[in-house]
Amino acid sequence: MHERLDVLRLGYRKGRDPRITTHLALVSRAFGADGFMLSGDEDKELFSNLKSVSERFGGSLDTNHVKGMSTLKQHVASGGVAVHLTMYGEPYRKAIPSIRRDRPLMIIVGGAKVPGDVYKLCQHNVAVGNQPHSEVAALALFLEAWFGDSGSDKKFEDARLVIEGTNKGKIVHEIE
Amino acid sequence: MHERLDVLRLGYRKGRDPRITTHLALVSRAFGADGFMLSGDEDKELFSNLKSVSERFGGSLDTNHVKGMSTLKQHVASGGVAVHLTMYGEPYRKAIPSIRRDRPLMIIVGGAKVPGDVYKLCQHNVAVGNQPHSEVAALALFLEAWFGDSGSDKKFEDARLVIEGTNKGKIVHEIE
Repeated sequence: MHERLDVLRLGYRKGRDPRITTHLALVSRAFGADGFMLSGDEDKELFSNLKSVSERFGGSLDTNHVKGMSTLKQHVASGGVAVHLTMYGEPYRKAIPSIRRDRPLMIIVGGAKVPGDVYKLCQHNVAVGNQPHSEVAALALFLEAWFGDSGSDKKFEDARLVIEGTNKGKIVHEIE
Repeated sequence: MHERLDVLRLGYRKGRDPRITTHLALVSRAFGADGFMLSGDEDKELFSNLKSVSERFGGSLDTNHVKGMSTLKQHVASGGVAVHLTMYGEPYRKAIPSIRRDRPLMIIVGGAKVPGDVYKLCQHNVAVGNQPHSEVAALALFLEAWFGDSGSDKKFEDARLVIEGTNKGKIVHEIE
Protein backbone atom coordinates (compact mmCIF):
# COMPACT_ATOMS: atom_id res chain seq x y z
CA MET A 1 0.00 0.00 0.00
CA HIS A 2 1.51 3.28 -1.17
CA GLU A 3 0.33 6.42 0.60
CA ARG A 4 0.32 9.56 -1.46
CA LEU A 5 3.38 11.84 -1.29
CA ASP A 6 3.21 15.50 -2.32
CA VAL A 7 5.80 18.26 -2.31
CA LEU A 8 4.60 21.78 -1.49
CA ARG A 9 6.84 24.69 -2.45
CA LEU A 10 5.90 27.80 -0.47
CA GLY A 11 6.33 31.42 -1.56
CA TYR A 12 7.36 30.98 -5.19
CA ARG A 13 8.52 34.16 -6.93
CA LYS A 14 8.33 33.83 -10.69
CA GLY A 15 10.94 36.46 -11.45
CA ARG A 16 13.53 35.06 -9.10
CA ASP A 17 13.09 31.34 -8.52
CA PRO A 18 12.13 29.60 -11.76
CA ARG A 19 15.18 27.39 -12.19
CA ILE A 20 15.46 26.35 -8.54
CA THR A 21 11.74 25.59 -8.48
CA THR A 22 11.94 23.65 -11.74
CA HIS A 23 14.74 21.60 -10.19
CA LEU A 24 12.59 20.98 -7.09
CA ALA A 25 9.75 19.74 -9.27
CA LEU A 26 12.02 17.53 -11.41
CA VAL A 27 13.55 16.04 -8.26
CA SER A 28 10.02 15.44 -6.93
CA ARG A 29 9.14 13.51 -10.07
CA ALA A 30 12.43 11.64 -10.47
CA PHE A 31 12.59 10.54 -6.82
CA GLY A 32 9.03 9.31 -6.54
CA ALA A 33 6.61 12.05 -5.44
CA ASP A 34 3.05 11.86 -6.74
CA GLY A 35 2.45 15.59 -6.87
CA PHE A 36 4.10 19.00 -6.82
CA MET A 37 2.22 22.02 -5.46
CA LEU A 38 3.25 25.61 -5.82
CA SER A 39 2.11 28.54 -3.70
CA GLY A 40 3.00 32.16 -4.37
CA ASP A 41 3.13 33.23 -8.01
CA GLU A 42 1.42 31.21 -10.73
CA ASP A 43 3.63 29.84 -13.53
CA LYS A 44 1.94 27.98 -16.37
CA GLU A 45 5.15 27.67 -18.37
CA LEU A 46 6.86 25.85 -15.50
CA PHE A 47 3.98 23.36 -15.23
CA SER A 48 3.97 22.93 -19.00
CA ASN A 49 7.69 22.08 -18.98
CA LEU A 50 7.10 19.48 -16.28
CA LYS A 51 4.30 17.91 -18.30
CA SER A 52 6.61 17.69 -21.30
CA VAL A 53 9.23 15.84 -19.22
CA SER A 54 6.65 13.29 -18.07
CA GLU A 55 5.42 12.83 -21.65
CA ARG A 56 8.93 11.96 -22.77
CA PHE A 57 10.32 10.14 -19.74
CA GLY A 58 7.13 8.61 -18.39
CA GLY A 59 5.16 8.63 -15.20
CA SER A 60 2.91 11.44 -14.12
CA LEU A 61 3.38 14.26 -11.66
CA ASP A 62 0.27 16.11 -10.56
CA THR A 63 0.91 19.83 -10.53
CA ASN A 64 -1.27 22.39 -8.79
CA HIS A 65 -1.10 26.02 -7.87
CA VAL A 66 -2.44 26.33 -4.32
CA LYS A 67 -2.74 28.61 -1.32
CA GLY A 68 0.16 27.28 0.70
CA MET A 69 -0.80 27.76 4.31
CA SER A 70 -4.43 26.70 3.93
CA THR A 71 -3.38 23.62 1.95
CA LEU A 72 -0.95 22.66 4.70
CA LYS A 73 -3.54 23.28 7.46
CA GLN A 74 -6.15 21.22 5.65
CA HIS A 75 -3.72 18.37 5.05
CA VAL A 76 -2.81 18.16 8.73
CA ALA A 77 -6.42 18.63 9.90
CA SER A 78 -7.50 15.69 7.77
CA GLY A 79 -4.92 13.39 9.33
CA GLY A 80 -2.00 13.83 6.96
CA VAL A 81 1.65 13.95 7.96
CA ALA A 82 3.66 17.09 7.17
CA VAL A 83 7.45 17.24 7.06
CA HIS A 84 9.11 20.64 6.84
CA LEU A 85 12.60 20.59 5.36
CA THR A 86 14.74 23.18 7.14
CA MET A 87 18.38 23.54 8.10
CA TYR A 88 17.10 24.08 11.65
CA GLY A 89 15.40 20.69 11.93
CA GLU A 90 16.27 17.30 13.35
CA PRO A 91 18.84 15.30 11.33
CA TYR A 92 16.93 13.38 8.66
CA ARG A 93 18.32 9.93 9.27
CA LYS A 94 17.29 10.21 12.91
CA ALA A 95 13.87 11.64 12.03
CA ILE A 96 12.77 9.29 9.27
CA PRO A 97 12.10 6.20 11.43
CA SER A 98 9.75 8.31 13.59
CA ILE A 99 7.63 9.55 10.65
CA ARG A 100 4.51 7.43 10.19
CA ARG A 101 4.03 5.86 6.79
CA ASP A 102 0.35 4.98 6.96
CA ARG A 103 -0.89 8.47 6.13
CA PRO A 104 -0.50 10.77 3.11
CA LEU A 105 2.76 12.71 3.37
CA MET A 106 3.33 16.33 2.46
CA ILE A 107 6.88 17.66 2.25
CA ILE A 108 7.11 21.41 2.76
CA VAL A 109 9.91 23.32 1.07
CA GLY A 110 10.13 26.92 2.21
CA GLY A 111 10.73 29.98 0.10
CA ALA A 112 12.66 33.08 1.08
CA LYS A 113 10.75 33.70 4.30
CA VAL A 114 9.00 30.83 6.02
CA PRO A 115 6.07 31.79 8.29
CA GLY A 116 6.72 30.65 11.87
CA ASP A 117 3.44 28.71 11.77
CA VAL A 118 5.01 26.23 9.34
CA TYR A 119 7.31 24.97 12.10
CA LYS A 120 4.32 24.48 14.40
CA LEU A 121 1.86 23.01 11.90
CA CYS A 122 4.28 20.37 10.61
CA GLN A 123 4.70 17.34 12.86
CA HIS A 124 8.32 17.09 11.74
CA ASN A 125 10.98 19.71 11.12
CA VAL A 126 13.77 17.87 9.40
CA ALA A 127 17.27 18.91 8.33
CA VAL A 128 19.59 17.45 5.75
CA GLY A 129 22.68 18.79 7.41
CA ASN A 130 22.56 21.84 9.67
CA GLN A 131 24.50 23.89 7.13
CA PRO A 132 23.25 26.33 4.53
CA HIS A 133 23.14 24.63 1.15
CA SER A 134 20.16 23.94 -1.10
CA GLU A 135 16.51 22.98 -0.83
CA VAL A 136 16.97 20.96 -4.03
CA ALA A 137 19.70 18.85 -2.40
CA ALA A 138 17.72 18.50 0.83
CA LEU A 139 14.62 17.28 -1.00
CA ALA A 140 16.58 14.74 -3.05
CA LEU A 141 18.41 13.31 -0.05
CA PHE A 142 15.23 13.14 2.01
CA LEU A 143 13.32 11.32 -0.77
CA GLU A 144 16.20 8.93 -1.45
CA ALA A 145 16.32 8.02 2.24
CA TRP A 146 12.52 7.87 2.53
CA PHE A 147 12.24 5.38 -0.34
CA GLY A 148 15.16 3.35 0.95
CA ASP A 149 17.88 4.32 -1.49
CA SER A 150 15.75 3.39 -4.44
CA GLY A 151 14.27 6.77 -5.27
CA SER A 152 16.84 7.50 -7.91
CA ASP A 153 16.40 4.04 -9.47
CA LYS A 154 12.71 4.56 -10.04
CA LYS A 155 11.30 3.25 -13.31
CA PHE A 156 8.47 5.06 -15.01
CA GLU A 157 5.49 3.69 -16.90
CA ASP A 158 4.61 4.98 -20.36
CA ALA A 159 8.09 6.36 -21.03
CA ARG A 160 8.91 7.21 -24.62
CA LEU A 161 12.59 7.64 -23.78
CA VAL A 162 14.47 5.37 -21.41
CA ILE A 163 18.12 6.14 -20.70
CA GLU A 164 20.40 3.26 -19.92
CA GLY A 165 23.50 4.95 -18.59
CA THR A 166 26.96 3.47 -18.96
CA ASN A 167 30.48 4.61 -18.20
CA LYS A 168 31.26 5.01 -21.89
CA GLY A 169 28.19 6.79 -23.15
CA LYS A 170 24.46 6.67 -23.21
CA ILE A 171 22.10 4.13 -24.64
CA VAL A 172 18.75 5.73 -25.38
CA HIS A 173 15.80 3.40 -25.87
CA GLU A 174 13.08 5.06 -27.91
CA ILE A 175 9.81 3.27 -27.42
CA GLU A 176 7.26 3.23 -30.23
CA MET B 1 44.85 10.17 4.51
CA HIS B 2 42.40 12.49 2.79
CA GLU B 3 42.92 13.11 -0.90
CA ARG B 4 41.79 16.45 -2.22
CA LEU B 5 38.29 16.71 -3.71
CA ASP B 6 37.31 19.57 -6.04
CA VAL B 7 34.12 20.34 -7.88
CA LEU B 8 34.42 21.92 -11.33
CA ARG B 9 31.36 23.64 -12.78
CA LEU B 10 31.67 24.02 -16.55
CA GLY B 11 30.15 26.71 -18.73
CA TYR B 12 28.79 29.09 -16.11
CA ARG B 13 26.57 31.88 -17.46
CA LYS B 14 26.34 34.74 -15.03
CA GLY B 15 23.03 36.08 -16.29
CA ARG B 16 21.24 32.76 -16.20
CA ASP B 17 22.76 30.39 -13.63
CA PRO B 18 23.71 32.30 -10.48
CA ARG B 19 21.35 30.62 -8.04
CA ILE B 20 21.86 27.07 -9.30
CA THR B 21 25.61 27.62 -9.27
CA THR B 22 25.49 29.12 -5.77
CA HIS B 23 23.60 26.02 -4.65
CA LEU B 24 26.25 23.81 -6.29
CA ALA B 25 28.98 25.63 -4.41
CA LEU B 26 27.12 25.52 -1.09
CA VAL B 27 26.51 21.80 -1.53
CA SER B 28 30.21 21.37 -2.33
CA ARG B 29 31.13 23.08 0.92
CA ALA B 30 28.45 21.47 3.11
CA PHE B 31 29.10 17.94 1.88
CA GLY B 32 32.86 18.02 2.18
CA ALA B 33 34.58 19.26 -0.96
CA ASP B 34 37.85 21.17 -0.57
CA GLY B 35 37.38 23.45 -3.54
CA PHE B 36 34.90 24.80 -6.06
CA MET B 37 36.07 25.86 -9.53
CA LEU B 38 34.06 27.79 -12.04
CA SER B 39 34.64 28.00 -15.78
CA GLY B 40 32.73 30.25 -18.13
CA ASP B 41 31.82 33.69 -16.84
CA GLU B 42 33.61 35.24 -13.87
CA ASP B 43 31.49 36.13 -10.82
CA LYS B 44 33.21 37.84 -7.91
CA GLU B 45 29.95 38.40 -6.05
CA LEU B 46 29.21 34.69 -6.04
CA PHE B 47 32.67 33.90 -4.61
CA SER B 48 32.28 36.67 -2.04
CA ASN B 49 28.96 35.19 -0.88
CA LEU B 50 30.60 31.80 -0.46
CA LYS B 51 33.40 33.31 1.58
CA SER B 52 30.86 34.96 3.84
CA VAL B 53 29.14 31.60 4.46
CA SER B 54 32.45 30.00 5.46
CA GLU B 55 33.24 32.93 7.75
CA ARG B 56 29.98 32.40 9.62
CA PHE B 57 29.57 28.63 9.46
CA GLY B 58 33.21 27.60 9.46
CA GLY B 59 35.51 25.60 7.27
CA SER B 60 37.05 26.86 4.09
CA LEU B 61 36.19 26.29 0.47
CA ASP B 62 38.81 27.26 -2.08
CA THR B 63 37.20 29.08 -4.99
CA ASN B 64 38.83 29.66 -8.36
CA HIS B 65 37.82 30.85 -11.77
CA VAL B 66 39.51 28.54 -14.30
CA LYS B 67 39.59 27.46 -17.91
CA GLY B 68 37.46 24.35 -17.62
CA MET B 69 38.75 21.98 -20.26
CA SER B 70 42.43 22.69 -19.70
CA THR B 71 41.99 22.32 -15.94
CA LEU B 72 40.33 18.95 -16.47
CA LYS B 73 42.99 17.81 -18.93
CA GLN B 74 45.80 18.83 -16.60
CA HIS B 75 44.17 17.10 -13.65
CA VAL B 76 43.88 13.81 -15.51
CA ALA B 77 47.35 14.11 -17.06
CA SER B 78 48.88 14.52 -13.61
CA GLY B 79 47.24 11.33 -12.35
CA GLY B 80 44.01 12.67 -10.89
CA VAL B 81 40.66 10.96 -11.06
CA ALA B 82 37.79 12.74 -12.82
CA VAL B 83 34.13 11.89 -12.34
CA HIS B 84 31.60 13.44 -14.69
CA LEU B 85 28.07 13.66 -13.29
CA THR B 86 25.59 13.08 -16.10
CA MET B 87 22.17 11.49 -16.44
CA TYR B 88 23.73 9.31 -19.13
CA GLY B 89 26.29 7.72 -16.82
CA GLU B 90 26.58 4.53 -14.85
CA PRO B 91 24.40 4.36 -11.69
CA TYR B 92 26.36 5.96 -8.87
CA ARG B 93 26.04 3.23 -6.27
CA LYS B 94 27.45 0.77 -8.78
CA ALA B 95 30.21 3.16 -9.89
CA ILE B 96 31.52 4.39 -6.55
CA PRO B 97 33.27 1.18 -5.45
CA SER B 98 35.25 1.24 -8.72
CA ILE B 99 36.53 4.81 -8.29
CA ARG B 100 40.00 4.89 -6.79
CA ARG B 101 40.39 6.88 -3.59
CA ASP B 102 44.17 7.26 -3.50
CA ARG B 103 44.28 10.15 -5.99
CA PRO B 104 42.88 13.67 -5.98
CA LEU B 105 39.30 13.63 -7.21
CA MET B 106 37.65 16.17 -9.49
CA ILE B 107 33.88 16.09 -9.93
CA ILE B 108 32.73 17.67 -13.18
CA VAL B 109 29.30 19.28 -13.32
CA GLY B 110 28.27 20.25 -16.82
CA GLY B 111 26.59 23.43 -17.94
CA ALA B 112 24.06 23.83 -20.72
CA LYS B 113 26.15 22.09 -23.37
CA VAL B 114 28.83 19.63 -22.35
CA PRO B 115 31.66 19.13 -24.86
CA GLY B 116 31.85 15.48 -25.95
CA ASP B 117 35.48 15.40 -24.81
CA VAL B 118 34.34 15.58 -21.19
CA TYR B 119 32.87 12.07 -21.48
CA LYS B 120 36.16 10.78 -22.85
CA LEU B 121 38.55 12.64 -20.56
CA CYS B 122 36.79 11.58 -17.37
CA GLN B 123 37.53 8.05 -16.20
CA HIS B 124 33.99 7.84 -14.85
CA ASN B 125 30.66 9.03 -16.20
CA VAL B 126 28.27 8.65 -13.32
CA ALA B 127 24.50 9.11 -13.04
CA VAL B 128 22.34 9.75 -10.04
CA GLY B 129 19.25 8.33 -11.64
CA ASN B 130 18.85 8.20 -15.41
CA GLN B 131 16.10 10.81 -15.29
CA PRO B 132 16.28 14.54 -15.89
CA HIS B 133 16.35 16.36 -12.56
CA SER B 134 19.07 18.59 -11.11
CA GLU B 135 22.83 18.83 -11.01
CA VAL B 136 22.50 20.16 -7.46
CA ALA B 137 20.70 16.99 -6.35
CA ALA B 138 23.13 14.76 -8.24
CA LEU B 139 26.16 16.40 -6.63
CA ALA B 140 24.70 16.13 -3.13
CA LEU B 141 23.77 12.47 -3.48
CA PHE B 142 27.11 11.60 -5.00
CA LEU B 143 29.05 13.34 -2.21
CA GLU B 144 26.85 11.83 0.51
CA ALA B 145 27.49 8.35 -0.91
CA TRP B 146 31.19 9.06 -1.49
CA PHE B 147 31.74 10.08 2.13
CA GLY B 148 29.68 7.15 3.40
CA ASP B 149 26.47 8.90 4.43
CA SER B 150 28.35 11.31 6.62
CA GLY B 151 28.75 14.21 4.21
CA SER B 152 25.71 16.03 5.55
CA ASP B 153 26.86 15.51 9.16
CA LYS B 154 30.16 17.25 8.54
CA LYS B 155 31.39 19.54 11.34
CA PHE B 156 33.39 22.63 10.49
CA GLU B 157 36.32 24.20 12.26
CA ASP B 158 36.33 27.89 13.13
CA ALA B 159 32.54 28.24 12.92
CA ARG B 160 31.04 31.35 14.48
CA LEU B 161 27.54 29.91 14.14
CA VAL B 162 26.67 26.29 14.83
CA ILE B 163 23.08 25.16 14.30
CA GLU B 164 21.80 22.36 16.47
CA GLY B 165 18.55 21.40 14.77
CA THR B 166 15.63 19.93 16.65
CA ASN B 167 12.07 18.99 15.76
CA LYS B 168 10.70 21.93 17.73
CA GLY B 169 12.98 24.74 16.64
CA LYS B 170 16.55 25.74 16.23
CA ILE B 171 19.28 26.15 18.79
CA VAL B 172 21.96 28.49 17.46
CA HIS B 173 25.31 28.42 19.19
CA GLU B 174 27.20 31.66 18.70
CA ILE B 175 30.86 31.21 19.36
CA GLU B 176 32.93 34.11 20.69
